[in-house]
Amino acid sequence: MSGALQRLKLVIAYDGRPFNGWQSQSGGGGIQDHIEAAAEKIAGVPVRLHGSGRTDAGVHALGQVAHFDVALPTHPPDRWQIALNANLPPEIRVLRVARARGGREGFHARFSATGKRYVYRVWNDRFLHPMEIGRAWLVPHELDFDALREGAKLLTGRHDFAGFAANRGTPEKDTVRTIHDIRISRRGPLLTLTFEGDGFLYKMVRLLTGSLIRIAQGRGDTAWLRSILEGVAQKTQFAAPAEGLFLARVFYR
Amino acid sequence: MSGALQRLKLVIAYDGRPFNGWQSQSGGGGIQDHIEAAAEKIAGVPVRLHGSGRTDAGVHALGQVAHFDVALPTHPPDRWQIALNANLPPEIRVLRVARARGGREGFHARFSATGKRYVYRVWNDRFLHPMEIGRAWLVPHELDFDALREGAKLLTGRHDFAGFAANRGTPEKDTVRTIHDIRISRRGPLLTLTFEGDGFLYKMVRLLTGSLIRIAQGRGDTAWLRSILEGVAQKTQFAAPAEGLFLARVFYR
Repeated sequence: MSGALQRLKLVIAYDGRPFNGWQSQSGGGGIQDHIEAAAEKIAGVPVRLHGSGRTDAGVHALGQVAHFDVALPTHPPDRWQIALNANLPPEIRVLRVARARGGREGFHARFSATGKRYVYRVWNDRFLHPMEIGRAWLVPHELDFDALREGAKLLTGRHDFAGFAANRGTPEKDTVRTIHDIRISRRGPLLTLTFEGDGFLYKMVRLLTGSLIRIAQGRGDTAWLRSILEGVAQKTQFAAPAEGLFLARVFYR
Repeated sequence: MSGALQRLKLVIAYDGRPFNGWQSQSGGGGIQDHIEAAAEKIAGVPVRLHGSGRTDAGVHALGQVAHFDVALPTHPPDRWQIALNANLPPEIRVLRVARARGGREGFHARFSATGKRYVYRVWNDRFLHPMEIGRAWLVPHELDFDALREGAKLLTGRHDFAGFAANRGTPEKDTVRTIHDIRISRRGPLLTLTFEGDGFLYKMVRLLTGSLIRIAQGRGDTAWLRSILEGVAQKTQFAAPAEGLFLARVFYR
């Protein structure tokens, strides 16, 4: 069965709550495990799924991207989508399946990615609305939006974000990343922070959000943010909780 | 303790999923039971809650209204809100507490209501998005929006809606209601139907939605709707599922 292979690209949405994050678990509770099991059932042979990157337990995705290779001949992409969704729990849905452009040489979900967009949802009210449970972070304090915007402006651009990363096994060697944009929008009690950049370190979006909210609460200032960026102050430990975070999109050339 | 009483008006939001509907249950699983138990704990005496009307199991509320009477002196409304939310499951939140205008004679959550707004959410795509589980009805068919709008127009106004009501114990004597407006809006796969009227019969919004979607699917036409309204055709049995329905607002003079 080592004939010609076809690379399929998947766009995936999931509610992160019932799973132990994206990555395969020994017990099989990872989102990756569920998709591999579904694909294996359809292909009849073991399938190895490669995601654009991991998401932690409780983090959601609106547009995670992954790929896997299947032996030809195989079902058309549309059939794959229907069959995968039929074999997945409802909290995981494959939104799109396509033949990867350029095939196995031309596309890799992780290494071909040129950037990502994350959305962080903050519920700024006295109580968390029942329909927001598990999908927003309740921040019941009054927030200074000018300070928030000033902080976001400071973080935008090319920086060494080592001070906004958590350790996970071996530390990253290169911690320089470029944030193209941090957009802040507000509609009633819902505050949305949208981060776009060429890549993000482990827990970076949650640490950026937690630190920015800290500033908006008046518990820190942009000088503090700057000193973390410059490696003068110690790493921030203010990570916003997982449930407000959504991997919205992965960009490719 | 039968001194002066104060009537408190509550605006309440809930995720309908974990509960057996609004109404008190012998087992205590109704939303009303939870709020009465919380109020009783705070007041130290039994409290009887009166809602604007019932909602079925799985139906959500963004702005249900209820009232109860407490002996004076009592906590200020703000303190009541905090104390109630502290004693309620997170899926029920009291959004506002106020002294009822006109007191016990002037306000009754049910009898003073002059109208209601319901929102029904339809997810019109091949698969239900994971973040829409329990909060929208998946309709995977192509829909005819002109037919949908035509049907909505026909239903708007003052009609005998007996053909769009389910039986619940003793049937309503007066089944004439006025629908002021049915607004239809669409954003991507999300289709929203907003119903505003002076009152709605049991399951009426779900039966109206189910029948309208039927027409949008090409499985019925406005002549069929008209014959139900006129009592010529039999009652519709096409009720949209509970999870897409939200009681959005109750109107008072």
